[in-house]
Amino acid sequence: MQYNKVNDGIIEELKTIVGAANVLTEHEKMEMYARDEVSDQLWEKMPEVVVKPENALQISEIVKLANRELVPITPRGGGTGLAAGAVPMIGGIVLSLEKMNRILEVDTENLFMVVEPGVTTGEVQKTAREHGLLYAGDPCSADSSFIGGNVATNAGGNKAVKYGVTTRHIYGLEIVMPNGDIVTFGGKNVKDVTGYDIVHLIVGSEGTLGIVTKIWLKLMPLPKYVADLLIPFADMQTAIKVVPKIMTAGIIPTCLEFMDSLSIKAAEMYLNKKLPYSDAGAYIICEVDGTSETQVQDDYETIGKLCQENGALEVFVADNKSTQERIWKARKSYAEAIRMLSPVYCMEDIVVPVSEIPKCLEAIERISKKYDCKIPSCGHAGDGNIHATILREGRDDHAWHELKDNVLRELYEVVYQLGGNLSGEHGIGAKRAEAMHKHMTEAQLNVLRSIKKALDPNNIMNPGKVLVLQ
Amino acid sequence: MQYNKVNDGIIEELKTIVGAANVLTEHEKMEMYARDEVSDQLWEKMPEVVVKPENALQISEIVKLANRELVPITPRGGGTGLAAGAVPMIGGIVLSLEKMNRILEVDTENLFMVVEPGVTTGEVQKTAREHGLLYAGDPCSADSSFIGGNVATNAGGNKAVKYGVTTRHIYGLEIVMPNGDIVTFGGKNVKDVTGYDIVHLIVGSEGTLGIVTKIWLKLMPLPKYVADLLIPFADMQTAIKVVPKIMTAGIIPTCLEFMDSLSIKAAEMYLNKKLPYSDAGAYIICEVDGTSETQVQDDYETIGKLCQENGALEVFVADNKSTQERIWKARKSYAEAIRMLSPVYCMEDIVVPVSEIPKCLEAIERISKKYDCKIPSCGHAGDGNIHATILREGRDDHAWHELKDNVLRELYEVVYQLGGNLSGEHGIGAKRAEAMHKHMTEAQLNVLRSIKKALDPNNIMNPGKVLVLQ
Repeated sequence: MQYNKVNDGIIEELKTIVGAANVLTEHEKMEMYARDEVSDQLWEKMPEVVVKPENALQISEIVKLANRELVPITPRGGGTGLAAGAVPMIGGIVLSLEKMNRILEVDTENLFMVVEPGVTTGEVQKTAREHGLLYAGDPCSADSSFIGGNVATNAGGNKAVKYGVTTRHIYGLEIVMPNGDIVTFGGKNVKDVTGYDIVHLIVGSEGTLGIVTKIWLKLMPLPKYVADLLIPFADMQTAIKVVPKIMTAGIIPTCLEFMDSLSIKAAEMYLNKKLPYSDAGAYIICEVDGTSETQVQDDYETIGKLCQENGALEVFVADNKSTQERIWKARKSYAEAIRMLSPVYCMEDIVVPVSEIPKCLEAIERISKKYDCKIPSCGHAGDGNIHATILREGRDDHAWHELKDNVLRELYEVVYQLGGNLSGEHGIGAKRAEAMHKHMTEAQLNVLRSIKKALDPNNIMNPGKVLVLQ
Repeated sequence: MQYNKVNDGIIEELKTIVGAANVLTEHEKMEMYARDEVSDQLWEKMPEVVVKPENALQISEIVKLANRELVPITPRGGGTGLAAGAVPMIGGIVLSLEKMNRILEVDTENLFMVVEPGVTTGEVQKTAREHGLLYAGDPCSADSSFIGGNVATNAGGNKAVKYGVTTRHIYGLEIVMPNGDIVTFGGKNVKDVTGYDIVHLIVGSEGTLGIVTKIWLKLMPLPKYVADLLIPFADMQTAIKVVPKIMTAGIIPTCLEFMDSLSIKAAEMYLNKKLPYSDAGAYIICEVDGTSETQVQDDYETIGKLCQENGALEVFVADNKSTQERIWKARKSYAEAIRMLSPVYCMEDIVVPVSEIPKCLEAIERISKKYDCKIPSCGHAGDGNIHATILREGRDDHAWHELKDNVLRELYEVVYQLGGNLSGEHGIGAKRAEAMHKHMTEAQLNVLRSIKKALDPNNIMNPGKVLVLQ
C-alpha cells in the first residue's frame, strides 16, 4: 500500500472541517499523541497532524478526505493502550476523540447510558453509581482510559469474571465507517437479531473497521453488598492452584486476581506503604457481590475456607470501603508500579484456559531462569489472563531486543500448547500484529483480511494494526 | 445471481463425499426438509437433494462442490425455526446437521462443553445438569431445536434476562467457511481479543456466512435455589406496567415473561388442564435463582410485593419442581397452543426497549381492533421481546395476505417509532428479509452486503436469507 503524506492542502481542508483550533501541527503539541502506555521507543511515532473533531459529521468528512488523498487515520482515545494501537506507526492523521466527551443520556428506566467515545471510563462508572446503577466494565486504567478505547480494544478488567468484558455491556454503536458513512446498529433493545451482529464485530476491532462516535452502554443494578478478600500464600504455585477450585465451587466471584511476589514488592515500593504479608510468595485477591448480605457472606466464607484448606497464610476480609480501596490500589497500580523495577518493560497479556494457569506460570518461571531475567506476573486469574512483564533493567538495546525475542517466542509457544491465545484484553495493535500472523493459519487470516478489505478497501483506517501491512 | 440445478453428476459426487445412505432424493423422504415451524405454505419449498454429512471435512467438500457448480446450500438444524431460515427457498442442497450429534467433551474444570451442532439444546441442558452445571440458553423449543440452530439464529429464550442470549454462551466455533476452508476461532479462553470477533459475527448469521461444525459452550454453576412466580392480573396493561418496575428494583430476575388472555386460554385448551386464574387478563411469569436461599426469598418477595402494590390479582410462588414445571408448560407451549385457535398464523418476534412495552401492546390492541383480527401476544417481557401472533382463522388466501400486509406494516411502523427492531430471537430468515431491507438504511445494508460478499462471493450459502437475493 502506498500512502501519501499530509500536505498543506490537506491541513487546510482539515481546518475547514474541524476549525483551526482543533488541528495541531506543532511538534511539541503533537508529542503526547506519538505514544501510548507501551514503555518502549520502538512503539512511538510522531503524527503528521492531529485533529480533534467534535461530532460524527466532521469525522465523516475527515474519513472521506483521507480516502480521497490516501492518507492513513489513527483514531485515539485516552492513550492508555498497551499495544501501540493508537500510535500512528506510519504517520498520517491522528484523530483524537477527546472533544467528544459528553454523556448524552442516563436512562434509568431501561438501564442504559448513551455516551460519546471521549468520556473516561471512570466518569461512566461514577455517573452510573450516582444513579444507583453499575457500569460493570472496570479496566485498571479506568480513571484515564476513554470508553471509546474500551470499546475499540474490548477492554477486560477486574469484574469480567462475573460481568464479562466490555463487549457484554455494549448494545448499540454509531460508527463512521471507513467510507465515511455514518451508521447506527443496535440501541436500547436488549435482544436484537435483525441482520448481522455488526456491533460486536466493531467492538475489539481497534479502530481498523471504523470510528465509534456514540455508544449505548447497558447498566445493571448496583449490588447492595460487596466484600473483598486478600489472601497471601507462601508461593505462587500454591496460590494459583486454588483458582480453578474457587471457579468450580458453585459461585461466581466478581473478581479473582493474583499478584506474584515481585508485583507485590513493586506495589509496596510505588505506593510507599507497607502491604500486609508483603513477603508472601503471592496474593489472591477476590471480590464477591450481591443483593443479599447473607449470600455475600456465604460466598466469601466458601472461598476463604477453600483457601485455608489449600495453603493460605491468612484470609483478610474487607467489607468496608476504605480497606477495599487499599487492596485494590495495590492491584490496580501494577502498570505504574512495575516502572519502579524497570522503567522499560514489555507487558504481555496472554490468556489460557483457567485450569492451565499453574502450568503457564511454571513455564514463565522456567523461561525467566533460562534467560536470567525478571518476569513479574499479575492478572485476572479467574479469566486465565496473565500480565507477564519482561523487565529490561540495565540491558542495552541489542540485549533487550534479543531477550524479548527469545522470551516471547518461548512464552507464546507454551501459551499455544496450553490452548491459549496472545491477548486477553490489551489487543493486538501494532505490537502483536506479527506474532498474531505467525500463530494464525492462512485460512483464519483470510477471514480477517476479507472483512477488512470489504469495509476499508483503501486500508486507511489504522493500517498496520491487528493485520500487518501487506 | 444465476444458480444451476442439482444434476445427476452432482448427486453422484455428493454420494461419493457422504456415502449413498446420506443422500436423499426421494420426494417423500425430502418432504420434512421442505419447511420449518412457520405455519404457512408461502414458506415451504422442496429441496433438490438432502445431504447428511458426518464431519467438517465432508461439509468442506460439499461447499467446494457447490461453489464450483453454483448450487445454493441451505444448512439445517432441528427445523424448529420460525423465519424459514432453514427452508431452501430457491432449491438446491439442504445440508442437514442431524448426524453430527455428539457431545465431544464436558470440561468440568474450565466449565465448558464442546459439542457438534446436531445435539439438541435439551440434551446440552440435561448433560450440563448431570454435572451440576447450567447451560443457560433456554429457547422454548429446547427439546427439539439443535444447538447449531441456536447458534445460527442467536436464540434467546426464557433465561436471557439474567444470563443473556445464546451468543453469550459461545466462546469458540469451528466453521466451514463459504469457500470450504475449515477454521476455528476461540475455544476455552474466557477472554480473547486476538483478531476480530469472528465467533460472534457467525453467531446469528443464519447459515449465510458459513456452517458451524463444532461449538465451545460456556457452562456455569447450577443455581442452588430457584423460585417461580405466577402472577395473574385483571388486564394486560396493568400487568405489563409492572415489568419496568421489576427491572429497576435492584434485582435481576432470571426470567420475566408475560401471556395475554388469549394465550392463556389457548394454553389451557392445548394442555387440556385448568390453569389458575385462567380468566385473568394477563399472566406475568417470573423466575429468580441464586446460591443462597435467603437471597432467592428476598428477591421473590420484592417482586411479589411490587406486583401486589400494582394490581396483581394473586401471587403464586412455586418453589418445587412439579409446580414450576406446570407454570412453564403453559408458557412454553405457546407456539403449539396457538394452533388450537388457528392452524395458520403469523408469529412475530418484535423487540422494543423495556419501558416501551406498554405502548407497543396498546398499539397491537388498536391494530387488532382496526383490522378485526385476533393477535394473541406472549413473550419475554424482561427483554422487551413480544411474540405477537396474527391468526388467520377462516380467512381465504387473499384476505389473509392482505391482513398480514396491513398488520405488519402498521406494527413495524410502531416498533420503529418506539426504537425497537424486527426480530429479537427468531431471526430474519426468508420471512423478514424484505421487511428488514425496507427498514434499514442503504448505508447499513451496505455494511451487511460487503461482509456477505467478502466471505461468500458466489452467494451459495443460504442465499435469500437475511439479505434478499439481488
